[in-house]
Amino acid sequence: MGQLDLFADEAQLEQAIRALAGSSDAYLKFLSPNDLGLTGSHQAGIYLSRESAPLFLEGKTVEKGENVEREVRIRFRGGNVAARFVWYGKAKSECRLTRILPLFRPDPARLEGSLFILAAVPDDRPDSLFENDSLFQCWIIESEDEIRAVLDFLGITPAETNQRLRFDLNERLLPEFERLNASVNEFPSGGEIARRSQSVYERLYGTLEEGVDDMLLRLIEIEYSLFRYFERKHYQPLIEEGFQRIDDFLSLSLEIHNRRKSRAGNSLEIHLKYVFDRSRIACAHGVITSDQRRPDFLFPSLDAYESYRVRHREAENNVSSSDAEGVFFLAAKTTCKDRWRQILTEAPGVNRRYLFTLQQAISKAQLDEMSDEGVTVVMPESYRRKFDAQNRGRIMSLAEFIEKLRQSGCESHDSAGLFG
Amino acid sequence: MGQLDLFADEAQLEQAIRALAGSSDAYLKFLSPNDLGLTGSHQAGIYLSRESAPLFLEGKTVEKGENVEREVRIRFRGGNVAARFVWYGKAKSECRLTRILPLFRPDPARLEGSLFILAAVPDDRPDSLFENDSLFQCWIIESEDEIRAVLDFLGITPAETNQRLRFDLNERLLPEFERLNASVNEFPSGGEIARRSQSVYERLYGTLEEGVDDMLLRLIEIEYSLFRYFERKHYQPLIEEGFQRIDDFLSLSLEIHNRRKSRAGNSLEIHLKYVFDRSRIACAHGVITSDQRRPDFLFPSLDAYESYRVRHREAENNVSSSDAEGVFFLAAKTTCKDRWRQILTEAPGVNRRYLFTLQQAISKAQLDEMSDEGVTVVMPESYRRKFDAQNRGRIMSLAEFIEKLRQSGCESHDSAGLFG
Repeated sequence: MGQLDLFADEAQLEQAIRALAGSSDAYLKFLSPNDLGLTGSHQAGIYLSRESAPLFLEGKTVEKGENVEREVRIRFRGGNVAARFVWYGKAKSECRLTRILPLFRPDPARLEGSLFILAAVPDDRPDSLFENDSLFQCWIIESEDEIRAVLDFLGITPAETNQRLRFDLNERLLPEFERLNASVNEFPSGGEIARRSQSVYERLYGTLEEGVDDMLLRLIEIEYSLFRYFERKHYQPLIEEGFQRIDDFLSLSLEIHNRRKSRAGNSLEIHLKYVFDRSRIACAHGVITSDQRRPDFLFPSLDAYESYRVRHREAENNVSSSDAEGVFFLAAKTTCKDRWRQILTEAPGVNRRYLFTLQQAISKAQLDEMSDEGVTVVMPESYRRKFDAQNRGRIMSLAEFIEKLRQSGCESHDSAGLFG
Repeated sequence: MGQLDLFADEAQLEQAIRALAGSSDAYLKFLSPNDLGLTGSHQAGIYLSRESAPLFLEGKTVEKGENVEREVRIRFRGGNVAARFVWYGKAKSECRLTRILPLFRPDPARLEGSLFILAAVPDDRPDSLFENDSLFQCWIIESEDEIRAVLDFLGITPAETNQRLRFDLNERLLPEFERLNASVNEFPSGGEIARRSQSVYERLYGTLEEGVDDMLLRLIEIEYSLFRYFERKHYQPLIEEGFQRIDDFLSLSLEIHNRRKSRAGNSLEIHLKYVFDRSRIACAHGVITSDQRRPDFLFPSLDAYESYRVRHREAENNVSSSDAEGVFFLAAKTTCKDRWRQILTEAPGVNRRYLFTLQQAISKAQLDEMSDEGVTVVMPESYRRKFDAQNRGRIMSLAEFIEKLRQSGCESHDSAGLFG
């Protein structure tokens, strides 16, 4: 029994979002068993991407062959943890944040697949209390709704996590963007930006012949930069000008926020469709089935799915599996921590469901549940590679999934292909 | 079967919010059976408050004794409806929006308790296509989550609906606010603003001896104005100045939005507590029970509730009802369209649950369900009065509820009272 404070301190989610918005440097990562010290490996601490090392080891030279350390103070849930960034240059050339086990108590395993947020506290802030220590703040966000709120606020997908959060633009892409911008009067729709990203991809990387997994990630990367570019072009003058009414101010913020959310939520499907087309895979995308379901992708076609269902009903379930019949359903979700169950009612009748996701860590417990429900996770190979051997075997790369489709006869009938 | 547009037109909720933010004049109302033409009464159309008539009959004099009409075009779900504002000065001195039955198709009864939003489209907008007609836009929001999103965005409770939406400040209150502001350095917390509103109430209306129902509504009205006043004092300079970074812009908007949401969500309880204290009713507010529930209000005390529960368990349910035992539970929810069921698990053991709400229309179907579940609605008398006779009998005013508490021995033991 106790007394509640009705106007309790600002919730941790809102704190995290505002700190991210105000921070010059931040890092987001989905926590893996290795990060959480659950694999019994020698290395302890949260693994950080190599390119982010300069952020964490500020002012120290990072070289192969030697270890470099930096003491930091990390604020977490109102308390402080004395932690240490370590550059392991001797053995592996990797960067980790160590001595942070207190953050994971009492149950590290529960945090697998949660979003870890690390933000540098700017020096000029009044809450920078520690003159001799560098100060960071961190949060661990467990619920998918809250994870999505963070990603939506920043306008990013999980593909932009596991690296230093970039608010600047990719210099290489800038000339392409300037060229596109010349023909733009109003803010392009999400679909328009996705398609323009594809044409930038074709011009810059079209001859590269890279695999479909890398292609997809690069499309998302270009699109994120292009979106940021248009956002700045379009809104910078408006926000610099200032506002007379608070409601006008809030209305514009809602518009910007909704654009970010929409782009982060919808572009994955558009790029997947592009990759399937380029790979000459036949599919139905964004269709409504005869029983009013809306599966993201059906292979090879809606007709094939519908007639499989008819056969299935007539034979009173005595038909072979949908995989064996050459009918496939793929759902696309940027994150899938809690919402993966939603796909269980999509595309009724199939025995196996494929779920493409950009979430870079999924707990073993969740993979077990997914297996039990006949769900196979598909993700970019570079993400899949980070899982331990046992779980890696249960996940398909996009290339593997496309190969499976091809072997099952889902090739496009248009023999020239869309890009032939 | 058909093709989905992934980036469909902006959702109607977001459209409505942005139009409200940009509109100089707007009106929000929870739809009653009478508004929807379900009562078979002679008058047809949506009843609008008398003080709002000038908004709708712009440029026309409204007087008792004559009827005045104005043709308007109302945009609704992409189409247009030719409607008519009518001032019925001959019989009743009331204002209605008529000829809008098409808005309610196909099932008017389903819309009882939904939020109707009417916003004037500013003349200088490019979408003001009708040179000779005046143009309004309207929306009907059915889900409580979406209704709350609208109210939260505006920072209002249902007490600020059913009237012209005021963005200006109450002139009478301004000197009081200026006096309070002199002692304020940072933005006051929600609880602080609520308490300051109470002291303004005491100075301006303390000798008025008005009933508890009017007292509560006036407290909310003062608080809304005071909140808006602080908001303007505090944020106007910041938004006028403009922003260099989109993320700083979004971060500030999040802060303002969260303040609005918090004030709209939490102040009702604080004002109810004030009214109970002033009425010398003993209650426990914001406590946690021994089984970890968080009922908003228990009468006369947490101890009384806990020992009622023990008696109840020991007698294996063979005790008289909680009402008869003089133990009461009241929940406070500004809106209650879908969420009223949440209170069914609060304060386990009581046979009757009281729900105080500011929602100004509740469907008959919902009142039936609430009756079945042992829930009694309590609301300000001026709202209750608008229900038809049959449903009015199932709703208590705040004065009636307090009288019931008093007769059941829930008076405060402090004989002097808090304001004695």
